[in-house]
Amino acid sequence: MAIKLIGVVAPASPLDAKLADRVRLMAGDLDGTPEVLFHPQCFLSSGHFAGDDEARERAFLDIANDPHFHSLWIGRGGYGSCRIAERLLPKLNKAARQKTYLGYSDAGFLLAGLYRSGCRVAHGPMPADLLRPGGAAAVDRALAWLNTDDTAGLEPSLEPGVPAAAFNMTVLSNLLGTALEPDLEGHVLMLEDVSEHLYRIDRTMFHLTATPSIRGVKGIRLGRVSDILPNEPDFSQNEEDIVKHWCTESGIAYLGRADIGHDADNKIVPFGVRQ
Amino acid sequence: MAIKLIGVVAPASPLDAKLADRVRLMAGDLDGTPEVLFHPQCFLSSGHFAGDDEARERAFLDIANDPHFHSLWIGRGGYGSCRIAERLLPKLNKAARQKTYLGYSDAGFLLAGLYRSGCRVAHGPMPADLLRPGGAAAVDRALAWLNTDDTAGLEPSLEPGVPAAAFNMTVLSNLLGTALEPDLEGHVLMLEDVSEHLYRIDRTMFHLTATPSIRGVKGIRLGRVSDILPNEPDFSQNEEDIVKHWCTESGIAYLGRADIGHDADNKIVPFGVRQ
Repeated sequence: MAIKLIGVVAPASPLDAKLADRVRLMAGDLDGTPEVLFHPQCFLSSGHFAGDDEARERAFLDIANDPHFHSLWIGRGGYGSCRIAERLLPKLNKAARQKTYLGYSDAGFLLAGLYRSGCRVAHGPMPADLLRPGGAAAVDRALAWLNTDDTAGLEPSLEPGVPAAAFNMTVLSNLLGTALEPDLEGHVLMLEDVSEHLYRIDRTMFHLTATPSIRGVKGIRLGRVSDILPNEPDFSQNEEDIVKHWCTESGIAYLGRADIGHDADNKIVPFGVRQ
Repeated sequence: MAIKLIGVVAPASPLDAKLADRVRLMAGDLDGTPEVLFHPQCFLSSGHFAGDDEARERAFLDIANDPHFHSLWIGRGGYGSCRIAERLLPKLNKAARQKTYLGYSDAGFLLAGLYRSGCRVAHGPMPADLLRPGGAAAVDRALAWLNTDDTAGLEPSLEPGVPAAAFNMTVLSNLLGTALEPDLEGHVLMLEDVSEHLYRIDRTMFHLTATPSIRGVKGIRLGRVSDILPNEPDFSQNEEDIVKHWCTESGIAYLGRADIGHDADNKIVPFGVRQ
């Protein structure tokens, strides 16, 4: 079996070099000893971002378009993927279309556009999750899936033959109607969020469920909404009440909870139908 | 000349009764002594909102559909208009379509849907602006415009024959693609915001300018972006750099600054072509 080469880029905020060393060592312990290569761009810094827009786009294309890499693993969220997503999609070659892409949070801008372009993408842990309490389990889960398609780390509600997708709800709201929006007709749509006020969660759920294309999903599952910021006054509904309210208003089925979120338990959701 | 009757409702957060008394007195000093009637719903409280969704919708329709009222003045922003906007639009009668609607911030959800429905709407000060430093000038400006179409309070860059519209940029982002989105083709689009991080302003500007319908505007003018929350790390671009960046990326003309914002200087922007 050929060694799997996993390339890491940081399309949003920068990574720490020591963290990269630890992730490389973890990969070395796996069957087949997959190799994780962190593109030097991961460690650049330019204002808010891991290098300027040109540097981040170039690094993404370096890995995506190189047939030696089995997969492109997004190193970290933060903010910045939307600044390069639309312009890099037309530059993807055949090797890019045969690759697997993994990430979540801000990386949803890229996952959306890549899925729309026919690539194999999944919502799941990233190298920077190592910094969370218990985060090694998340990184192990992602590495095992990238290495051997290990199904143990998949989100447990996924059903064979039923297409799925997962997003940070604020990110999905911010790409609706753009060239990045994928066709989610008939999909189970899993949503999670972090560090928002409940009134913002409510407003975002209005936007999602009032959008005709989203009204075509099979149903919505709610992942974890963590680190909720204080609402003044108290919102009087929790995040699940809010999602149920908007599902009822819009006629979208509410299917229950999903095991995803900004935490170490974040499970993997391959987009589309499980292969 | 018949006395103009101005009805106030609160589709989002509640108003203070003493504030209502002060605004009524200010109206009494004007030529023709217009009368400002605060719907009792303005003073209700239900969690985050000035009464539950049903109460806020009913109050809005009470004023909008009553031919005795010349105009409907939105009392305050906050959050909540999107929860009632889509459902009340089909219930508007002929009197509602002949009325003038004034407000801004969260009220943008209503202004958008009302403009799309053919109503006369304007972005401008609300009664609650009386609580801002120097806010009496803002309330006077709004009352003078509602009372006699006084043009002194209009946003100074408005040009006869050139359609315009103004929005809180986060609110506009959250209604794109929904049944509330008006046709802004050929309009000068003025944008303002408050209490956001610069990375959020950047992300919102991505969404707006990556949306095909917004790419059809005549150009964008930037109002004030106030109370910017600390960005970690420093964003390295200010709000005007950000708006210029996205205008360049998307091919939308950047037309300069607009005299609107969450402050006492907020000028009035009637939607569409000035009559």
